[in-house]
Parts: sequence; C-alpha cells; structure tokens
Amino acid sequence: MNQKARKYVDLFRQVKIASAATVDEKGYPQSRIINVMIAADEGMYIVTSRGKPFYKQLIQTGRIALSAMCPDCQSLKFTGKVKRVDQKWVDRVFEENPGMNEVYPGKTRYALEAFLIYEGSGEWFDLLSYPINRESFAYNAKEEPAGFEIMETCIGCGACLSVCPQGCIKEGQPYEIAKNHCLQCGACQEACPEEAIRRIHP
Amino acid sequence: MNQKARKYVDLFRQVKIASAATVDEKGYPQSRIINVMIAADEGMYIVTSRGKPFYKQLIQTGRIALSAMCPDCQSLKFTGKVKRVDQKWVDRVFEENPGMNEVYPGKTRYALEAFLIYEGSGEWFDLLSYPINRESFAYNAKEEPAGFEIMETCIGCGACLSVCPQGCIKEGQPYEIAKNHCLQCGACQEACPEEAIRRIHP
Repeated sequence: MNQKARKYVDLFRQVKIASAATVDEKGYPQSRIINVMIAADEGMYIVTSRGKPFYKQLIQTGRIALSAMCPDCQSLKFTGKVKRVDQKWVDRVFEENPGMNEVYPGKTRYALEAFLIYEGSGEWFDLLSYPINRESFAYNAKEEPAGFEIMETCIGCGACLSVCPQGCIKEGQPYEIAKNHCLQCGACQEACPEEAIRRIHP
Repeated sequence: MNQKARKYVDLFRQVKIASAATVDEKGYPQSRIINVMIAADEGMYIVTSRGKPFYKQLIQTGRIALSAMCPDCQSLKFTGKVKRVDQKWVDRVFEENPGMNEVYPGKTRYALEAFLIYEGSGEWFDLLSYPINRESFAYNAKEEPAGFEIMETCIGCGACLSVCPQGCIKEGQPYEIAKNHCLQCGACQEACPEEAIRRIHP
C-alpha cells in the first residue's frame, strides 16, 4: 500500500466509526454503522457475526463501501472488495479493541467472523475550506479521481467559470478545472455551449 | 408518519451528518457523507447536484440507505425509497440550512436537485448499554424488526442461553429472546440442537 492510501486507511481506523454499505439479495442498498478494527498495509479489518444480513451480503457480493466523518467536517469515502479471513483475526481485533469484550464476552466472540477489505479506491473531502479540497487514494486498485475536465474544443467563452460555485476554473486555452477544489456539481458541463466539458469517470 | 418514526427522522436531521448508500450501474455499493436537510411528516429531504454519480444512482434506482451515529454511541440505520421533487425544495433547504450558501453561493444552488425519502424502515441501536438496546421504526412502509425467534419445538435445553453474548434469552416453554436487547449475532441459532430458532426477516 502506498503512503497516501495508508494515511487514509489509518484515518478510517482513527475515526473508528464508519458507515458500511452493501447490496442485499434484492439489489437494494443497505447501510449500518461499523468500526474499522485494524488498519494495516494489506487493508482494513472489520468483524461481523454470522447471523447478520451484513455477513451474508459480504459473503455473497464480496463488495463494500465505507464512508466516515472526521472532526471539522472532513469526510472519507471508499469502495472496494472484501473477503473473509481466518478467525485468528477475530482474536487480533479483540486485542486491539478491548471494548469488544463487553459486547461479546468470553468465547461468544466466535459468533463473529473477520473480513479484510483488501482493495479499493476512495476520496478524502474537506467541505469547510474555500475552495473545498479533495484528494483521491487507492490500494491494490487504480485511483479513480472523479470530476470533470475541459477539452481542447473549449472556445474560451467563460460560461463555465461564471456558474462555478467554487470559482475553481482557470482561464486558458483550454480553460482548466482545479480538480482538487471541484465540487463535481456539473454546473460547468451544463453551461458549456460547445459540449467541451466531460465527466472523467462516467 | 407515526410518532415513533418522526422521532427517528428528527434524529437523522439533528445529527445532520449521515452516510447515504446507493447501488451503482455495476450493482456495486457506493457510500458518501450527506446531510439530512429537512425532516418532515412526509419524510426526509436531501439535495445533490445533477453532475454527481449519486444523483444518477438515485434517479436510476429510486433507493437509498442511510446510517448515522448519534452522540454516545447510538446509531441509526434506514433503507427506503427516494424521488426527485420540485426545485422549490432546494430553496427551502437553503432557508433551513443557511451554511449551504457558502458552498453554493447565489444562483449556483440550482446545480442541485432536491429528493424526498418518502418511505422506508429503519432501526435505532444503542451499543453502550448492557444489554444493548434497539428499536425499529418505519413510515409509509411496514416495520421490519430483524433478529431471531425461538419456536414451539424448543426442548428447553438452555444451549442458546449459554452462548448468548448479551444474556437476553429468558427460560420458558419455549425459551424467549428479548428482541430489543438482541445483538442478532445468531449464536443461539447455531447452538440449538433442535433447529428451533429462526431468523424473523431472512
């Protein structure tokens, strides 16, 4: 895992309280609060019990999305792949998170299974600075920075700049979007008379 | 909307910071931090901009799941249906959330669309009390309390009680699970020699 990804994986662990999204057997989204129990170079470890729909959805789909809120209105989101790992990881989780013993005392912990989120990509987002700030990251997967870009067919009319809520478009030939400060609202794309603005990852 | 549901819808609004899960065009889960902007008897209002994958996913699937963390380690989760509503609701949202003007100043707010989460069911969950505590709620939809129940074929052997992390099973004929205190871990079901325990909403 690269240093940037490790920084954000550690942040997921540090805020601890994250939301985990899965897709159920009907294809509908499901979400619940979880804790990222261990952050490591190979990914993030979580636990859940075999009796839960969450468990079934992880096993059946192998997919999970996370989001979390850091202090001061910075947020994290992530989507990636997950696999069940050996129950020795349940023990490791209880070592590193002793409060878990109050919820699952003694051997009752073995109702739980551990999962490793072993690859995926995500983004950190700070809504409270002006202009807003964002950074993408990934491990064992490609970074997929979202957002918009202005192509060579730009005629320099400035329509995009005039509608940008964050004023993050720079004049030039073509005009240029500062992607790290972009809300990704798409107002520029709607305003462009030349259809010279496109979404990067559609 | 009944009083209990209104209490939890108001709580989503009060904590403000929630995680919203959707399913993307590949069938994968996606998640991001959002704000519940208005809580009302007809549901919860949120906004997003037309340029975002979130917008596209809401329009295409009509489904959303929310989860949120309240102070003191209580959590909320919810899954339900969503529809786009008139842009006058964008104005209402900005009236009730004036901080939005800093992110989308002036007319740039109309890059946003408003959505109403008009039905669904959810659960409040308090992990810090012992035994843990939970309550389900719903509006314009049936409550779907999850968890396990012990059937008449129970032989009263007590295997379930001995493995319950929360000690929330009461002796009797049949034994009985206190559903509001249950972790829904499924340990009891695995331990029952008579297969007399079943998941309520599989």
